[in-house]
Amino acid sequence: MMTVTRLDAADAETLIAGAEAHATRIGVPMCIAITDESGQLIAFRRMDGGKVTSATIAIDKAFTAAAARKATHEYGTASQPGAPAYGIASALGGRLMVVGGGLPVIVDGEVVGGIGVSSGTPDQDRAVAQAGIDTFGAGG
Amino acid sequence: MMTVTRLDAADAETLIAGAEAHATRIGVPMCIAITDESGQLIAFRRMDGGKVTSATIAIDKAFTAAAARKATHEYGTASQPGAPAYGIASALGGRLMVVGGGLPVIVDGEVVGGIGVSSGTPDQDRAVAQAGIDTFGAGG
Amino acid sequence: MMTVTRLDAADAETLIAGAEAHATRIGVPMCIAITDESGQLIAFRRMDGGKVTSATIAIDKAFTAAAARKATHEYGTASQPGAPAYGIASALGGRLMVVGGGLPVIVDGEVVGGIGVSSGTPDQDRAVAQAGIDTFGAGG
Amino acid sequence: MMTVTRLDAADAETLIAGAEAHATRIGVPMCIAITDESGQLIAFRRMDGGKVTSATIAIDKAFTAAAARKATHEYGTASQPGAPAYGIASALGGRLMVVGGGLPVIVDGEVVGGIGVSSGTPDQDRAVAQAGIDTFGAGG
Repeated sequence: MMTVTRLDAADAETLIAGAEAHATRIGVPMCIAITDESGQLIAFRRMDGGKVTSATIAIDKAFTAAAARKATHEYGTASQPGAPAYGIASALGGRLMVVGGGLPVIVDGEVVGGIGVSSGTPDQDRAVAQAGIDTFGAGG
Repeated sequence: MMTVTRLDAADAETLIAGAEAHATRIGVPMCIAITDESGQLIAFRRMDGGKVTSATIAIDKAFTAAAARKATHEYGTASQPGAPAYGIASALGGRLMVVGGGLPVIVDGEVVGGIGVSSGTPDQDRAVAQAGIDTFGAGG
Repeated sequence: MMTVTRLDAADAETLIAGAEAHATRIGVPMCIAITDESGQLIAFRRMDGGKVTSATIAIDKAFTAAAARKATHEYGTASQPGAPAYGIASALGGRLMVVGGGLPVIVDGEVVGGIGVSSGTPDQDRAVAQAGIDTFGAGG
Repeated sequence: MMTVTRLDAADAETLIAGAEAHATRIGVPMCIAITDESGQLIAFRRMDGGKVTSATIAIDKAFTAAAARKATHEYGTASQPGAPAYGIASALGGRLMVVGGGLPVIVDGEVVGGIGVSSGTPDQDRAVAQAGIDTFGAGG
């Protein structure tokens, strides 16, 4: 038997609040998703003006980061033509995201969930996801 | 050109809060989803203990109620064997939900969004969705 | 080698116009789809107020009626519990529609296309689809 | 609550007519799709000789341009190997199109819908989509 540590609903709200604050600061309304360590959705928010396509993309970025335990921008590098994970982007019916904006949430060296952000540039998405993690790490 | 009125992010949070309060009252942790009038996700919350399968089911109930402008339990009645909409449950890749727990959110006679709830019995799900609407109707 | 007779784009517009006129007459804004004899989409119209969920359902009704060469309400009868085609509604990823509103378009005893209608009751959908065929049969 | 402006059915026909006129001018029968601002289909036409595969591609181009508020050829540039959105093409089950021919329809600085064209080269598709927008902008 094993014991798993994962984000709870309150943690998810803290992560979203931190991300949303940064999205507001940079003036880009975002879709923000939080999953548990298995990649299953805990919470989601589309800010007013967030893109419709970005709802699913944010969820899939969080899913990928948590369940594959890797930031989506790292998959971006690893899946370039000629690189070892080339072609992985279409895995899982296209759910495995290789565009920046998905980060694993790590506590005591263990992945306990994921955060995915979409609607801006990949760099903006990643910065907003990181802001969520920073807020969470700081105890909310 | 036409003009459409829909829920915004703050409305969605009010609906979720109202639903969650009732779910807590009856002691059933729920998945709660809010969509706009086109069925696109605005907000989602899985309470601690909500079922993993219920995340997608709640989202699809909200989608169905909003985009088809009909409570999902009404589809349940209309799609019984021998009834006119028999077989509709497998439409849209199975996203069209005919199990109770999805309600359109109606303002001034117009559907402006949907709420979908899942993890309890269909009656519990429906009562929790209704509680969200009641809270929203009361102005949060 | 074989030769196939199918609807062209002008035929599709005639069918849609006839269906839309009847939908307007009964006051139910509809989604109306026309496919060729292989079930491939030729034309689609969502009238102002037609349901979002009904876009795909109308297309799938036309697809089913044309490609399976059978009115969707006939599948409704044939797929009741205990009937020979029970369970067929979930075939093809749920695209095989067994709810009324899909009719094959038949010329000289041959299926040359399909019309699918959705947004009203199945009886209304079917009547609107039939009106399209009547207009087409009368030469537009 | 928020208010959204979107294309209606008459606007969609104007857009299709403008696109079809240009397609006829260059001698390439096209599939032409129009969606509302949420990416939901309003109208579709496959001209005689339009490709079967292009029906879905045109619909997905219009969906992408409207719901992600970006021309599909811009995604083409942004998703090249080494570019920030590399890998985005397989998102949303492959519905997110990065091939030219999808354009957002913008009125008063707001995206009110999308037009997607497919069957020619991406440059031809894009020119035909632009012709639809030009006709619409000129008031049909």
